[in-house]
Amino acid sequence: MSHSPHPTIALATGCPAGIGPELLADTLASNQIPEDVRLIAIGDARVLDRGAVARGCTPAAQILGRNEQIPTEPGRYFVNLGNLDPATISVGQISLDAGKFGVDTFSAAIDMGARGVADVVAWTPFNKAAMRLAHPSYEDEIVYTAERLDFRGTASEFNVLPKLWNARVTSHVPLSGVAALITFDRVMKSLKLTDQAMRESGYEAPRIAVSGLNPHAGDGGNFGREEIDVLEPVVAAAKHEGIFCDGPFPPDTVFVRARKGEFDAVLTMYHDQGQIAMKLIGFDAGVTLLGGFPFPLVTPAHGSAYDIAYKGVADTGAMANAMAIAARMARTRKAVRES
Amino acid sequence: MSHSPHPTIALATGCPAGIGPELLADTLASNQIPEDVRLIAIGDARVLDRGAVARGCTPAAQILGRNEQIPTEPGRYFVNLGNLDPATISVGQISLDAGKFGVDTFSAAIDMGARGVADVVAWTPFNKAAMRLAHPSYEDEIVYTAERLDFRGTASEFNVLPKLWNARVTSHVPLSGVAALITFDRVMKSLKLTDQAMRESGYEAPRIAVSGLNPHAGDGGNFGREEIDVLEPVVAAAKHEGIFCDGPFPPDTVFVRARKGEFDAVLTMYHDQGQIAMKLIGFDAGVTLLGGFPFPLVTPAHGSAYDIAYKGVADTGAMANAMAIAARMARTRKAVRES
Repeated sequence: MSHSPHPTIALATGCPAGIGPELLADTLASNQIPEDVRLIAIGDARVLDRGAVARGCTPAAQILGRNEQIPTEPGRYFVNLGNLDPATISVGQISLDAGKFGVDTFSAAIDMGARGVADVVAWTPFNKAAMRLAHPSYEDEIVYTAERLDFRGTASEFNVLPKLWNARVTSHVPLSGVAALITFDRVMKSLKLTDQAMRESGYEAPRIAVSGLNPHAGDGGNFGREEIDVLEPVVAAAKHEGIFCDGPFPPDTVFVRARKGEFDAVLTMYHDQGQIAMKLIGFDAGVTLLGGFPFPLVTPAHGSAYDIAYKGVADTGAMANAMAIAARMARTRKAVRES
Repeated sequence: MSHSPHPTIALATGCPAGIGPELLADTLASNQIPEDVRLIAIGDARVLDRGAVARGCTPAAQILGRNEQIPTEPGRYFVNLGNLDPATISVGQISLDAGKFGVDTFSAAIDMGARGVADVVAWTPFNKAAMRLAHPSYEDEIVYTAERLDFRGTASEFNVLPKLWNARVTSHVPLSGVAALITFDRVMKSLKLTDQAMRESGYEAPRIAVSGLNPHAGDGGNFGREEIDVLEPVVAAAKHEGIFCDGPFPPDTVFVRARKGEFDAVLTMYHDQGQIAMKLIGFDAGVTLLGGFPFPLVTPAHGSAYDIAYKGVADTGAMANAMAIAARMARTRKAVRES
């Protein structure tokens, strides 16, 4: 089963019609992967080659067959599923074949996480529209992972910049429905999940700011009571449990303070409260992390960028950041598992 | 009554315990006021002197008594209300006397606007807590102006950066109450007010982006229907009336696009949607503009900064931007009135 005592990352090739293969080739060619890490890339060797040509780089990875035993030593491996001839798809176009390749490759990576072969699962960007052609219920990576794992717990998305994390209590819900979802249990769960994920990624005691829900954090109850009724009790209880959190803070200045370095993370109450800020602060470098599953999942926050696919110009910064987080989390996870 | 054919700005001294007097002295000393403008500053000459000493500058203004006739020619004038000996208040402390001075001075400026003496009213920052000691119903400048004018219409606050305006449809309401307030009439009114204020400030055809309410602007109705039911019809109707608007756009990327220069303004649906972005983009340079009243009101967006009062270190950038907008709007208003 290829279990290893070394921290292991499974890395799926993203959409073959986008910039994913280039980013994969660059990752395997560069020396950004620490020497103690076992990196298992997954895809089709022909797709990888095409990415390498576009990038003008030489991936360094031992190519393995689909059912071949993966060495347990640290190093870079590429499991060749042989599942797509890139000549059969059009660059920059949504297609069933591109989607099938994506679902197939992502599933193989998730399975490695589920079987304990990999400590962390990563991928270069997929194209959701292509994935949906191959798998109609494909909403996003979080929903698909839950489905594949038959996972019934709560998973959460984190947006991670080099020095600032953002987690959110609610996500894809209408704004009119947000307030009703701001409950003690839900906020507390998000806060704990954030604290845990950050500790696993290397923070000893992350400083987490809890954002208010209402303008001016409710202004003492004048513009909403959720801060008084829900958020203040959550912060008090979480502090009592050893979480370094504070708040609730006025939503419109908490990110200004975080950007200055006052906090390591901001827990926001709804999608745009955090997304507006994070995209202004530094979308290009952003990493998306899924927490709450049996293993963490990590990917660059940007998309598959069909418009610049195979042009060798894609920015590799977010991918490098994603792999750095993946390596740190894999190390922590492996250490906990082995102990 | 001191009416003049020249564009006129009434400029009230802000809180005498804060940085207001310094900013006033700097404005009167610098050559940032265009030569065609008639600037009528209002306050106490002793407070102005103290600001000038702190700033190390020499204000150039003709000092006039409270009831003296104000010359109609362009130039800088200072109406000495003689209403506060600065030796009687403590710097950086909230006090009844500081509040009385603020309410008194602001009222005199508003009255000049109401009587048509001034085309635009401006002020250096007040301290709301001090104002409240003197006038308990003082909520903020918008509420006090409405009260003083016995104004029953709709007034709106705009946040203005050098190249980006933000107006909002709702403001100090709980987040749970926002969605119900997003109606065709309310959004349309905000859009028209924004367009009008921007044209008066010098934009020939401002490009206004309308933000969505929901994450991903509702994602085609999946996360809320206000975009489809309200915002799309508003944008269509406004375009038909000659307003250069577009949207509704996903709230989390509209400011990234605006910052790049794609739009001159973003109309947001609720307080923090705009405030989170504007404060990250450039709070220091921000100007607050009140529109919808019979005359525009303009002030720097920052506060009275008690912690650095009379130290001569206050940043004058926002004040300079406020006066530049005031001058442009005064010119437009005067031209319309004279024609």
